[in-house]
Amino acid sequence: MSTRVTVLVGGSLAAALMVTAGCNPPGSTKAANSDTSVAAKSFVAPGAKDEYYLFYSGGHSGQVYVAGLPSMRHISTIPVFAPYPATGYGFDVESKSMMGKFTWGDVHHPGLSQSDGKYDGRWLFVNDNANNRIARIDLRDFKTRQILGPIPNSSGNHGSSFVTENSEYVLVASRFSVPLPKGRYADPSTYKTEYNGMVSGIKVDQKTGEMSVGWQVLTPPFNWDLGSTGKGPSSGWAFWTSYNSEMAHETLEATATQGERDYAAIVNWRAAEQAVKDGKATLMDGVPVIDPAKVPGVIYFLPVPKSPHGIDTDPSGRWIAASGKLQPVTSVFDFEKIQKAIAAKTFDGDVRGIPVIKPEAVLEGEVPVGLGPLHTQYDGKGNAYTSLYVESAVAKWTLPPWTDAQKKDLNTIVIDKIPVHFNIGHLVVGGSDTKEPYGRYLVAMNKLSKGRHVSVGPSQPESSQLIDISGNKMSMLYEAYTEPEPHFAQILKVDTIAPIEVYPKAENTDSNAVWEASQASVTRNGNKVEVKMMAIRSRFVPDKIEARAGDEITIHVTNVEQTTDMIHGLGIIEHDMNVVVDPGETKTVKFKAAKAGVFPFYCTNFCSALHQEMQGYLAVKP
Amino acid sequence: MSTRVTVLVGGSLAAALMVTAGCNPPGSTKAANSDTSVAAKSFVAPGAKDEYYLFYSGGHSGQVYVAGLPSMRHISTIPVFAPYPATGYGFDVESKSMMGKFTWGDVHHPGLSQSDGKYDGRWLFVNDNANNRIARIDLRDFKTRQILGPIPNSSGNHGSSFVTENSEYVLVASRFSVPLPKGRYADPSTYKTEYNGMVSGIKVDQKTGEMSVGWQVLTPPFNWDLGSTGKGPSSGWAFWTSYNSEMAHETLEATATQGERDYAAIVNWRAAEQAVKDGKATLMDGVPVIDPAKVPGVIYFLPVPKSPHGIDTDPSGRWIAASGKLQPVTSVFDFEKIQKAIAAKTFDGDVRGIPVIKPEAVLEGEVPVGLGPLHTQYDGKGNAYTSLYVESAVAKWTLPPWTDAQKKDLNTIVIDKIPVHFNIGHLVVGGSDTKEPYGRYLVAMNKLSKGRHVSVGPSQPESSQLIDISGNKMSMLYEAYTEPEPHFAQILKVDTIAPIEVYPKAENTDSNAVWEASQASVTRNGNKVEVKMMAIRSRFVPDKIEARAGDEITIHVTNVEQTTDMIHGLGIIEHDMNVVVDPGETKTVKFKAAKAGVFPFYCTNFCSALHQEMQGYLAVKP
Repeated sequence: MSTRVTVLVGGSLAAALMVTAGCNPPGSTKAANSDTSVAAKSFVAPGAKDEYYLFYSGGHSGQVYVAGLPSMRHISTIPVFAPYPATGYGFDVESKSMMGKFTWGDVHHPGLSQSDGKYDGRWLFVNDNANNRIARIDLRDFKTRQILGPIPNSSGNHGSSFVTENSEYVLVASRFSVPLPKGRYADPSTYKTEYNGMVSGIKVDQKTGEMSVGWQVLTPPFNWDLGSTGKGPSSGWAFWTSYNSEMAHETLEATATQGERDYAAIVNWRAAEQAVKDGKATLMDGVPVIDPAKVPGVIYFLPVPKSPHGIDTDPSGRWIAASGKLQPVTSVFDFEKIQKAIAAKTFDGDVRGIPVIKPEAVLEGEVPVGLGPLHTQYDGKGNAYTSLYVESAVAKWTLPPWTDAQKKDLNTIVIDKIPVHFNIGHLVVGGSDTKEPYGRYLVAMNKLSKGRHVSVGPSQPESSQLIDISGNKMSMLYEAYTEPEPHFAQILKVDTIAPIEVYPKAENTDSNAVWEASQASVTRNGNKVEVKMMAIRSRFVPDKIEARAGDEITIHVTNVEQTTDMIHGLGIIEHDMNVVVDPGETKTVKFKAAKAGVFPFYCTNFCSALHQEMQGYLAVKP
Repeated sequence: MSTRVTVLVGGSLAAALMVTAGCNPPGSTKAANSDTSVAAKSFVAPGAKDEYYLFYSGGHSGQVYVAGLPSMRHISTIPVFAPYPATGYGFDVESKSMMGKFTWGDVHHPGLSQSDGKYDGRWLFVNDNANNRIARIDLRDFKTRQILGPIPNSSGNHGSSFVTENSEYVLVASRFSVPLPKGRYADPSTYKTEYNGMVSGIKVDQKTGEMSVGWQVLTPPFNWDLGSTGKGPSSGWAFWTSYNSEMAHETLEATATQGERDYAAIVNWRAAEQAVKDGKATLMDGVPVIDPAKVPGVIYFLPVPKSPHGIDTDPSGRWIAASGKLQPVTSVFDFEKIQKAIAAKTFDGDVRGIPVIKPEAVLEGEVPVGLGPLHTQYDGKGNAYTSLYVESAVAKWTLPPWTDAQKKDLNTIVIDKIPVHFNIGHLVVGGSDTKEPYGRYLVAMNKLSKGRHVSVGPSQPESSQLIDISGNKMSMLYEAYTEPEPHFAQILKVDTIAPIEVYPKAENTDSNAVWEASQASVTRNGNKVEVKMMAIRSRFVPDKIEARAGDEITIHVTNVEQTTDMIHGLGIIEHDMNVVVDPGETKTVKFKAAKAGVFPFYCTNFCSALHQEMQGYLAVKP
């Protein structure tokens, strides 16, 4: 580690961090890159298509957004945790039930399903930090198909969704600690003794994708942060960073940054799975929980520099890069050494029965990447890219094995740096978390966009920047703005998947589906009115529903089209009801006809030249 | 009108319309425009800014989206009719109350406020077709500040928001007809006699922007469609097209397209305003309603070709272009002739007391633009641009006055045509509805994107295409995809406005605001707990709230930052609660602490390097 870096660490870095957000005057880089020869590099001509999907998390919007690369164009929104009337999500009976009592989520880290350590295009998993949930999006039709949670005994689902190399599990770690089981009261002043964190293995059914809680591992009340899963030599293992190993419970911005090091968790998830099979877990709130003090071999701690934020396994599975956001280095650990240290018990005591691995025994080196390092991605060609929050830059550096000369001065392995705007958080290289990264593009997900875009008032978007990493030097290609707030993204080659665009009639098993006008019906049973409705260009059958004030109305609407993009919507005037039905789909809505009067209904999703005429009446007698 | 066109009209055009959506095989135009020299024309380099705002309606998403031109990049979402957890809209007390009982809307036609027939940058008005409302967005801070409605006596607020030349009114016409006053039951079979439509004048307070219903004009049960307001010679007037002048009430796709012509409404809104002042209106549901059979001079009908969709006043205010989507011509009317015809009573009888102007007396010509003409926009240089739904194209033609030679063959005035993909609905030229259009760019808002973008499953986005209209020939520049479903847009020069990005502390009049830690408080009164909270980088004060299960909790949270983009969010674990507070803003949330246990709260909107540490606890005793 160079002297320069050491001096910086010695300075008041934490104080400097507080003001960086205001350092870059708005508009200061205006037209900085006015060389339009770069324009063609991200341009996708009208009629041509992008090469990659960019699935980015929508943060507290609760959704997942799909953009195309290299154009960076927003293509569509996949509603997950928040209602989305544009597709009727959260209005029909099925999606409403899936969302439960919640109308938002806080999506942080999308994770694509993998087979043999490569993206297989089956599913995309996303977490909800706010309500402790995990959702599964099916990439066959880009729809959210399951929301699991709130996960028992786990609070603040930030440290997920990390998918194992054959999608056996989606791994989760709690950001917050609470008294367990949930619902138990203990004053925050008893935090150190009464509160606990948790690592959870969410089991994935390989056929259906159905998720369930497989096992949990109890931890001290550290705040678990980011993680990654192993492969190759680290197959069967997973890693998380933490902050607040001080176990403070108030004014965390000061109290949780006292120690020079926090702990990373090194979890043997195959051992956890086995421990549950062996009956070594105890049920808590219906879930098998492993107490690591009683079941050795499941979890180890590894000290890493102050308040680490990211810990990323390289494509080979041997190198683990952990960055401490309050120290200007990225620590590279050698998993082969970690296994040897565990075997040889090269420990420095334990924390509550969890052995602490001696860092010097497993550290390959501390790379002086720059100020405020957070996350690291890999291009599969021996290079690593680390986001530098404080510097607002991305550093490119060389993975081990290093030459003796390189080891002597690790400054020499930092081979390029590119400024980004402003204050980068995550970054993503396509396939970085797989055995075979795509390389080529890197997307910098910047936390602040201040002054980079036309002013839209106080509520500002985030900025994402597209960087070409195909050459030796990184080069800036494009800047796009995103819905709040992309924390991380996954990139998938478009030709990996072939989504369906029409639901085949043969697959529609809804017993209330109707495919011809003659099958449509309105049936009354007491004060319940049930309607089987057909939607077709350009009419609803029936186009008249009679009811009495107070009736409970159920409408099953089938879109009988079998043509791509031939979507119908059913909106009912002044009833807060809109459902959108894709070709071949049947959806059910239930509502009360509370007021007398006549309420037109109409097709809300453009369908044909006579779309405007596609309407009917809900006529409610007093 | 040419023979060719007449023949097409004679053919089964309506039948042809039904299948056009499937005519263009997906991907058929892939790489059609691979000339990358065009790339630079829409490219806005990282650090540079767009020149225009594009405000587009989000259709049944319920929101307004802001993009930049020429980059077509999505910049941000302005939540209007649907909750939007990304900014906490619909979660705090004020926005929740503004939305009332509705959680979605169907936004069709945004309208910018005007002064002297030019955009003045004060407000953007948008309509909700589904729940009969109008909202006002303040362009000072890009926030929705009022939602008016449901508007009494009006159902299906499609035919708005059309702003008069000094923003005196936002004009509205009902798409659907219902028995009036609302709540009255009458069987749809009595449609012709018992149902009515309505034109409404929503008055706008010039100082505050506050909207109220000024007056209404009763109409026969036609389906009012699109409209525009007058200026110059047509100052004080407004125009709407209609369909279903047949007054059919079932299977409209067939029954509402029988007649060769439908009626446009020619409304003298100054006369309507005066009639109310003169006591000539009758109150219905609290609103003064004018019966035009009793108050002459307020409204006239003008027959225009079959199922017209758009009626657009040119920048001079003299020429009115109305397009009949089921006939391949755009009819150009001369408002000076309309005034003469009204003065001379050149009528062809009346419909329910509303005089019908003889079309031949006011028609300047029928321009053979092509198949399925819908809407017309103007560039201020004597050119008109009409969207052609069936042809999937935009036609450019010359406005009158025409030479004798041109009049002899109106085919000669159609000077250019450009294909768009696919099935264009609206189109927009910046400032087309003002005295001084910007010209330069045209955005084609296409209804179907099938196969133009990377596949995202059955739920597909719409396509918008950017066309350069600065030259004699139109040229295609870029294609972007939009949230469902942009019906129309407004374009505003960026330098017209200077939005604020921070709410000045001095303007915060919330008595519950706290600006220093010492002012923060938790107060209990019975089972009510009231919290005055401060949010600042990187902590909440207080960071502990004690409660008992069943307590009603009110939190007033003030973001004391005075720096642009320094936004804080307050999310509470498993309480379905998230509020986002802009710099200098105070927001209030209310909720019940239903369950015992400890529930962390945290900052949901990235704010600083220690954002992750910005957290606290809601500790609920049993």
